[in-house]
This record gives sequence, structure tokens and C-alpha cells, in this order.
Amino acid sequence: MVLRLQTLSRSFRRMKYLTQTEAQNLDKDLMGEEGGFTLQQLMELAGLACAQTVQNLYPAHTHNKVLVAAGSGNQGGDGLVAARHLALFGYKPTLFYPKPSKNEFNQQLETQLKHFNVPRITPEEFDKGVASNDVILDAIFGFSFKGEPRAPFDAPIETLKQTNKPIVSVDIPSAWDVEKGNIDNKSFTPAALISLTAPKLGVKQFTGVHYLGGRFVPPYIAEKYALHLPVYPGGDQVVEIPPTSL
Amino acid sequence: MVLRLQTLSRSFRRMKYLTQTEAQNLDKDLMGEEGGFTLQQLMELAGLACAQTVQNLYPAHTHNKVLVAAGSGNQGGDGLVAARHLALFGYKPTLFYPKPSKNEFNQQLETQLKHFNVPRITPEEFDKGVASNDVILDAIFGFSFKGEPRAPFDAPIETLKQTNKPIVSVDIPSAWDVEKGNIDNKSFTPAALISLTAPKLGVKQFTGVHYLGGRFVPPYIAEKYALHLPVYPGGDQVVEIPPTSL
Repeated sequence: MVLRLQTLSRSFRRMKYLTQTEAQNLDKDLMGEEGGFTLQQLMELAGLACAQTVQNLYPAHTHNKVLVAAGSGNQGGDGLVAARHLALFGYKPTLFYPKPSKNEFNQQLETQLKHFNVPRITPEEFDKGVASNDVILDAIFGFSFKGEPRAPFDAPIETLKQTNKPIVSVDIPSAWDVEKGNIDNKSFTPAALISLTAPKLGVKQFTGVHYLGGRFVPPYIAEKYALHLPVYPGGDQVVEIPPTSL
Repeated sequence: MVLRLQTLSRSFRRMKYLTQTEAQNLDKDLMGEEGGFTLQQLMELAGLACAQTVQNLYPAHTHNKVLVAAGSGNQGGDGLVAARHLALFGYKPTLFYPKPSKNEFNQQLETQLKHFNVPRITPEEFDKGVASNDVILDAIFGFSFKGEPRAPFDAPIETLKQTNKPIVSVDIPSAWDVEKGNIDNKSFTPAALISLTAPKLGVKQFTGVHYLGGRFVPPYIAEKYALHLPVYPGGDQVVEIPPTSL
């Protein structure tokens, strides 16, 4: 048993933390001609993994109200998918999605959500939204983020810095540098993080609860990027990364 | 507790069994302008549900080799997706997909599978394939099937009638009448069934293990078709339907 745990923690310890360029290239590889995946598939599985992380950590009977904060990029799309699955899991999600993507598929994700009666809040309502929900799913900025948060996301980031509500961040906490992390504590530190495909360099020092999702990486890509992925349990779409590996 | 169980079994008993036309219309509703879902999303979730059913019933450590038999329609697509998830779950799937769809997305599903090193067998190898695998996932014909099975699927159906290997059928066992079931025992009876969105009329007398998947139905569609869907546990994509409801 001791040996097994040591082996397990060793395998986690060797896990790869991706640079921003590696994360972008891995995404391109998955969806390129050779990988053959479509964005719709990966987004569905990523969003499901986000919803399952919330569900594992903050069950619907104790944390029924989830504020899903979604940006206008692909991570925002993951958020829209997660909001739908959370509704299906019995949560009451609320959506903050102030800059809707004009991309046709993202608009379809909005259509899907409407039928689950997910209310939306404006930037002016964000503070109240945080105060009246039990947990926040942060899907504002993803692994392509650079620079400083701009309106309408700058004030919400400040609000998230002040709140003591639990925050679950997707992939990289919003406004963190993807490689250097939370420089000068400019942004908030979430209670939990769900990394997708593999953790990014910027979260190497993160000491909160850390999940991994994106259970779709084919062996040749795992090998190409030397990911050393952990073993997911059963048919789960997420696996917890023990703190010893951080 | 007794009350809870009674309520539960009552809610299952009232579950709707769909006619062929209802199943087709429900699919159109989901993917129409109002529903907003795409085939790629629904297929990914359906295939994942199929893989999780196999995983729940025949774990990889006892039933490592799964023969996935896929037709050329959408149910075949579910099978291709399931084969990929099974590989990710640690199974060694083999694919029987003798009439590959020319649809671009189905071809992408094939590309995705190749990277998981999933071998394929021809109709001539089907008998051997059944004999050398531990469990068969039957995704040959779906809810649009009518008439009689034709080559290259007719002989495989006969083989499946003879085998004592466990078969898990998707939605409706292949070559069953979607509304009348296994007329004159022309086809095989699987050990287990994974119905998608809601069970079809033809499986109302099915007494094997019965799962439900397709956890994506919005409330207005569940209401329109009076589905009375059961409650899925936690973040699972499948729920077992107790025999009392059959």
C-alpha cells in the first residue's frame, strides 16, 4: 500500500506543466487534421468536467446556486457547457456572460441554456450575483490570456478578490499569468482549480484543491508533450491531483 | 425510506416508451433551431453514456476486450465515440465497422480512434472477433431501423444470436422492431440495454439490465413528450432503470 502510494505520488510529481505556447499547440494538435477532434466535442467534455468538479466539491444540496462567469473565448464556451450540465445535475446556475461570442456554435450554446431557464446577470449586477450565489465557476480567461483584464471583466475580478465565496477556476485562474501565476497578487486565488488536458506552468505553486479534466488526450499527444497524465478513476471525467505533486 | 422507494419506483413506472416517430421527432427537436444542440455534442454524450454503461456492468479488469459493432448511421457514430472512451477507460476495444459513413464528422471519429490504436475486423472475422472478446457493444441499428437486416450485418446478427458472450445493446437491440421488439425471436436478446433519452416501445418487455443515458434533455422537451425521466445520480451520465418499472 505504501509502495502503491509512493508510486502514485511519483507519477503525479512527474506531471507536466505546460507553457502557454505548448497549451496552444496541444489544442491545435487535437483539432488539426491528424488529431481529428472538433471544438464542439472537446468543449462538451471540458464543460462536463468543470460541472463534475463543482459537483464533487460543492454538492447541489449544500451549494445549489452557482454563478458561472464566462468570457468570450473558448473558455467561456466551456463555462456555457458547464452551466447546462450543472442545471442537469440539479443546480440553479446563473450566467455572467457580458460579451457573448458571435461564433455560431457559442450562440447555439446560449440557445441550449435558455431552455434550462438559466438567468443572466449584467456587469452592474455582478457584486450582487456573487453575494447571492453559493459558489462561483470562473471561466472568464483561459490559457491564451495575456496582459491586464479589461472592462467588463476588470471590476468582476476585483469583486472576486474580495469575496469569501468559494471559487472554482477553469484551467488558469482569471487574470493570472499563464506561466508566472498570480503576479503581485493582482488577481484572486480560487479555492479549487480544474486544469484541462494538463496543468499550466502558472498554477505550479497553487496549493488549493486541484482537479484535472479533459479526458480525451490520445497517447501520441500525451507522449509528444511528455504529459505523464494520472489515471482517471472508472468512467469519471475528472481526477484529483494530490497536493504532494505540487 | 419506504415512502422514498415507493415514490422512486412510481416515477420509474410512469416512464414514457417512445414510438419510432416520437424518437425521430425528439431528435429533430433537440437539433432544430429551437433546441440548438448539434449532432456532435449529442453523439459525444451518448457515446460516453454507452462506455460508462459497459464500465458499470463489465469493469475493465474482468472484461478488458470489448468488440464494438457499429452501423453506418448515427448509432454507429455513438459506437465510435464509445470505443474511444472505452480505450480511455483502460479497455482494449476492437471495432467492427464494415460500412463506414461518408459523413465528414464520422470520418473524424474514425481518425480520432486510430490514435487509440483500436484494431478493426472485417465481416469475415466477426465470428472470431466475438469469440475472442469479453463483451460486445451492439451499436449496429438504431431507432430508425425498419425491415430486415441486410449484408454485411445479417450474418453478424446470427452470430450474436448464438454467442453466450454478454451483449450490451444501444437504444434498441439490433434488428428488433423499434415498437414491437424481438418479433419471433428473429434477433438476439442482449444481457443489457442502454436506452438513450428515453426507452423505445420495443423494449418494454425487456427484462435484462436496463440503463438510461442521454442526460441532455431540456425540461420543455421532457414535458412535450411526457418523458417522466428518472433522476440521474450525481454527475453520472447514466442511471439504471429498476426492473419494477418494466
